Amino acid sequence: MSETDVTAAILVIGDEILSGRTKDKNIGYIAEYLTALGVDLREVRVVPDVEEEIVAAINALRARYTYLFTTGGIGPTHDDITADAVAKAFGVSIDHDPRAVAMLQERYTPEELTDARLRMARIPAGADLVENPISKAPGFRVGNTFVMAGVPAIMQAMLDRIAPTLETGARMVVETIEVPGIPEGIYAAALGDIAKAHPGVSIGSYPSFTAGGFRNQIVVRSKDPGAAAEAASAVREALERLRGDGVPA
Amino acid sequence: MSETDVTAAILVIGDEILSGRTKDKNIGYIAEYLTALGVDLREVRVVPDVEEEIVAAINALRARYTYLFTTGGIGPTHDDITADAVAKAFGVSIDHDPRAVAMLQERYTPEELTDARLRMARIPAGADLVENPISKAPGFRVGNTFVMAGVPAIMQAMLDRIAPTLETGARMVVETIEVPGIPEGIYAAALGDIAKAHPGVSIGSYPSFTAGGFRNQIVVRSKDPGAAAEAASAVREALERLRGDGVPA
Repeated sequence: MSETDVTAAILVIGDEILSGRTKDKNIGYIAEYLTALGVDLREVRVVPDVEEEIVAAINALRARYTYLFTTGGIGPTHDDITADAVAKAFGVSIDHDPRAVAMLQERYTPEELTDARLRMARIPAGADLVENPISKAPGFRVGNTFVMAGVPAIMQAMLDRIAPTLETGARMVVETIEVPGIPEGIYAAALGDIAKAHPGVSIGSYPSFTAGGFRNQIVVRSKDPGAAAEAASAVREALERLRGDGVPA
Repeated sequence: MSETDVTAAILVIGDEILSGRTKDKNIGYIAEYLTALGVDLREVRVVPDVEEEIVAAINALRARYTYLFTTGGIGPTHDDITADAVAKAFGVSIDHDPRAVAMLQERYTPEELTDARLRMARIPAGADLVENPISKAPGFRVGNTFVMAGVPAIMQAMLDRIAPTLETGARMVVETIEVPGIPEGIYAAALGDIAKAHPGVSIGSYPSFTAGGFRNQIVVRSKDPGAAAEAASAVREALERLRGDGVPA
């Protein structure tokens, strides 16, 4: 284990996710991205476009984890209220930020820069901006909270800019073991014993259901590469023993 | 608005979602399903396979919404701890349930019904079972909380069985308006005015970014069909006015 785990939460903001109209594509992307960096994603929440809900979730999550990443609600329309909610959560003022206005001016002529578009330059006091190479309206960071767009292409570009600024912990070493035709209910007992014998290692069993029936994978995860390798060996040996016992393949 | 809104939360349980290894497919499915039934999904959380995290999330969410739906963590392996966490959250005992054992016996011979598989018959006291036509191990309901599998095909089959038992509210009437080439920043002011003038209606603006550039949709939602239709008309008229003003299409 690393001395200090670096942890994170994601807060997805938007009625469209809760109504099912839009299928979120950001949670899985950010999860995989942070894991690769050595940041442990510990919790995700999805809340509607309601200021008090957003403020409460920001304050719960930013207090608990090293970083909080939000997606959604930073566009130009009336339902884009994330920046105001972040300012309220942190107890800071919010106004048009000259740096953000300058970014919008790269894209829009003075006539095009409507009041609505200028809303996208409303940034909480003291924030650092996160560049948006696609549509210019920036994300931002206040304290340990990173505020990103909801549109996946823009969110991904922002995350690329945020990543080099993050403190990271030890990377998780992950070994995925394909199970050769042995059902979960047969290897579960052995797997539980191995998990108990390797306390620094997380061992998961993941069935998926396909046209051809169930397929199982066992995933061994640890920040200690030696411990991960030992546990993975123990899993492979147990599976070989079970095959030797004539478990139907 | 209906007299009593019927609300819901989803709790996704599993390290594999937080590590990004598995991309959740259940949130969007359940969201759309509940919306169609007239149940308002208000919050989603994703937590790891850690009992105290699961218990805390169950208790926070079941107290706040009409229904709570959980996915994941009801298989036969050591990391499947959802049933125990639910029992703990509700302060009830948990043991092998004869009805659940009988269901497993439909699939497994006595020799196949290992202790691990029998774990899937551990059900909190007082629960109703939710049939699983695919792999037999049931989900269950305790109080207002429905516990479902994480494998999407099984979760979906369980949800079909749960749906007829749910109290439902007025269905949301949704009108989606394709925006004819007018950028968000141009129609945002008019849209904000319309939203203010129609307080019982939720109006959202959703850009998506494609190879061809941005495409915007405006979504008008209300439980009052007349109010939704009026607001949608106002939006269409505003967009026509803006086109008449020579906004580049």
